[in-house]
Amino acid sequence: MLPRVKWKTQAIQELRSSLGEEAISTDDEDLLRHGYSEWSSINIDQLPVAVAYPQSTEEVSQIAKVCHKHKIPMIPYSGGSSLEANFSAPYGGMSIDFTFMDKVISLHADDMDVVVQPSVGWMSLNDQIKDSGLFFPVDPGPSARIGGMVGTSCSGTNAVRYGTMKDWVINLTVVLADGTVIKTRQRPRKSSAGYNLTSLFVGSEGTLGLVTEITLKLAVIPQETSVAVVTFPTIRDAAAAASKVMRAGIPVAAMEIMDEVQMAVINRAGSTSKKWKEAPTMFFKFSGTKAGVQENVRLVKALAKQHKSGNFEFAVDAEEQKTLWSARKESLWSMLALREEGNEVWSTDVAVPLSRLPDIIEISKKEMDDLGLFASILGHIGDGNFHESIMYNSKDPRERAAVEKCIKDMVDRALEMEGTCTGEHGIGLGKKDSLLKELGIDTVNVMKSIKFALDPHWLMNPGKIMDMPA
Amino acid sequence: MLPRVKWKTQAIQELRSSLGEEAISTDDEDLLRHGYSEWSSINIDQLPVAVAYPQSTEEVSQIAKVCHKHKIPMIPYSGGSSLEANFSAPYGGMSIDFTFMDKVISLHADDMDVVVQPSVGWMSLNDQIKDSGLFFPVDPGPSARIGGMVGTSCSGTNAVRYGTMKDWVINLTVVLADGTVIKTRQRPRKSSAGYNLTSLFVGSEGTLGLVTEITLKLAVIPQETSVAVVTFPTIRDAAAAASKVMRAGIPVAAMEIMDEVQMAVINRAGSTSKKWKEAPTMFFKFSGTKAGVQENVRLVKALAKQHKSGNFEFAVDAEEQKTLWSARKESLWSMLALREEGNEVWSTDVAVPLSRLPDIIEISKKEMDDLGLFASILGHIGDGNFHESIMYNSKDPRERAAVEKCIKDMVDRALEMEGTCTGEHGIGLGKKDSLLKELGIDTVNVMKSIKFALDPHWLMNPGKIMDMPA
Repeated sequence: MLPRVKWKTQAIQELRSSLGEEAISTDDEDLLRHGYSEWSSINIDQLPVAVAYPQSTEEVSQIAKVCHKHKIPMIPYSGGSSLEANFSAPYGGMSIDFTFMDKVISLHADDMDVVVQPSVGWMSLNDQIKDSGLFFPVDPGPSARIGGMVGTSCSGTNAVRYGTMKDWVINLTVVLADGTVIKTRQRPRKSSAGYNLTSLFVGSEGTLGLVTEITLKLAVIPQETSVAVVTFPTIRDAAAAASKVMRAGIPVAAMEIMDEVQMAVINRAGSTSKKWKEAPTMFFKFSGTKAGVQENVRLVKALAKQHKSGNFEFAVDAEEQKTLWSARKESLWSMLALREEGNEVWSTDVAVPLSRLPDIIEISKKEMDDLGLFASILGHIGDGNFHESIMYNSKDPRERAAVEKCIKDMVDRALEMEGTCTGEHGIGLGKKDSLLKELGIDTVNVMKSIKFALDPHWLMNPGKIMDMPA
Repeated sequence: MLPRVKWKTQAIQELRSSLGEEAISTDDEDLLRHGYSEWSSINIDQLPVAVAYPQSTEEVSQIAKVCHKHKIPMIPYSGGSSLEANFSAPYGGMSIDFTFMDKVISLHADDMDVVVQPSVGWMSLNDQIKDSGLFFPVDPGPSARIGGMVGTSCSGTNAVRYGTMKDWVINLTVVLADGTVIKTRQRPRKSSAGYNLTSLFVGSEGTLGLVTEITLKLAVIPQETSVAVVTFPTIRDAAAAASKVMRAGIPVAAMEIMDEVQMAVINRAGSTSKKWKEAPTMFFKFSGTKAGVQENVRLVKALAKQHKSGNFEFAVDAEEQKTLWSARKESLWSMLALREEGNEVWSTDVAVPLSRLPDIIEISKKEMDDLGLFASILGHIGDGNFHESIMYNSKDPRERAAVEKCIKDMVDRALEMEGTCTGEHGIGLGKKDSLLKELGIDTVNVMKSIKFALDPHWLMNPGKIMDMPA
């Protein structure tokens, strides 16, 4: 029994009278912006009924108390860049937009950590703290913000060296469904004290509580960084070379695979001055001391050669490194920019055990090409994680069905290989069946019992990850 | 309302008839061995009423079903080396000893992971897989086994480079309170699919379920390892040098601090051929490529010199490295070996934000010395984590009270510094009040509600981490 969308003007009035008129919006455009996303793999007709703009943990707690009293769903919103409709509002309710909670609260440089609010972007964070010689290494899409990054347990190109979001969160301040405020831990870099609630909230997609403050670990900015691009005859060769690099324990800073289509997208977007060969390609990032970088480059070159690599082309300076890496990171947006009227892009990810990556990439690429659509593969190959992005005509039900089948087959293949239906985007609205297939009903039931324990009225981002039992 | 110890001979009969006579022991010595520990910070009179010896996940599930039916507490037992009475039996019940579940089930060298049963020791595991060129980097006390390491979310000397237990567990097979068997994930190295149940069970000390199978990530054995020992005029100098090393981002493989007492213990235990200077000392481990190791040694030497270090003494070969490192790792056991009749050793740990470590170590060392007892400090200093071990006469209530106060003051000091009451040993029986002080009632209540959701009769290792609400 899901909470019905019984919206009460009384709730809005209560909130406006305590938080101010501006704190709650019911503007149509605002509702659309908080319920619809042009880069989401799935969109629905339902929108949130109002958007709240809290300015502090205390205000979030007040919002939760009112929503709890009136049984109104609560859906957190930060950067809005998620891909699996993680912030959609299938049961209406209140979108809680953290826009005004965008401060870096305190940098503890000597402790190598920083306390931030949910709407701080990871790129802005790194810009604000760069004089400390420290940085936050988790790097998903450029517009992602820390709150949403906690929600999806995201990662990015640096994950092969630095790990994923869960590895970098020290503690969270969370507003629970009834408005209670908790902090999951104090500030030690490690702890064995009680249940690891931090890691439970990371990746729970806002279904257990609203994260209002985050303490993040920081890393020391490496002395030297080098970026290189190299092509391979086939995508399998590229994937096989990547497996060898991992198995040899060479500490690459990042290792990204892109197919020929993705390279064409970069060329057409024109964000780099160079025109790239449109072939299966790997982007490498090396970092460390000067000597360490040189040594790693030498080792990787030797392994790549065994898999028929072309020549390594190095970015000539820091500026070119930056341009090149952002070309890679903006790939989805570059693809969206190439869309014609009426087209959509379906972008999704899976992850498999390392040794299975060449197999799944090769088959999935072939099946995707067979669709005859504009489609590409790219991936964080050192993690066994890759993405498919397929452009299709959303007005054509047959085309949509064909794309859906292709994606579903890729996901099923990943599950058969003991992989996961999502490496970094989360379950959101569209992958609930896959989660059930991946882990089985008993495991999902444990998740449900935890959800019920913390949110008995099923008010926190309902409809995501799993459905409420009938 | 805690489950009463209403032991039913019927339960034992049921289990013996399905698992065999030998599967359940009620032998007095066996009960003592499973309820009492000479290295535990706390011991109680109560013992388990029986010990079960399952041979498979299926058998563990049968045991849980019977215990669930008769409302019998279940307490998992693997290496028995934990320090906070984590396997004690304050409510009697069934100790479940995984001795016969000690197999490495499958090594996936190309995926860089391994599937093991709970009673595989981490040292034995590394011995069994060494030909693959891979190793499991989490290194607590030498006798620890993987099951218990999951339970306490342990770490060890390698944590500064490789992280702690939670970072190395890919999935768990868990038998829940009612005998249901779940698997938390498949085998991808990263996933965003649903709640991170793996990290919830890691560190839950057996209070949420019985772990029967574990998939662990593995790392590549570094090409080159070097071990060095260096003294400092004061423990504060040593701690300050360690902070500098961290802040400079030098990737040391391990960095351990030991006070002069601990060095005397190593000398008296005679496990190394050399006689060490009895002064505040740091043990460093460097690993990586040959060039990388040389570079890191050079950088660390320069920083240490700024803090008045003595000369670095390097182990001459792999054998001496091993001896030296095991001397460090066996420090608690060496101390236990020096006990006189009637003496006990209280050994416990805390962790604080990095910059606070020199302060807390200096004050705690002074207060410990003021006791006038044989007592030492050693620590995983790169994690902000350290241990106190104090030898005292357990027959003297005044002495016991003084030691207890000294330890409590250290814990309170760590909490005031935004640290934690335990970095790697867990809460067990003795630190429940500290956990409450550390995180507050609302956070502990979230833990309790999760406990109730998974174990409504409070049967799984009751009395640990938190008490059942009255």
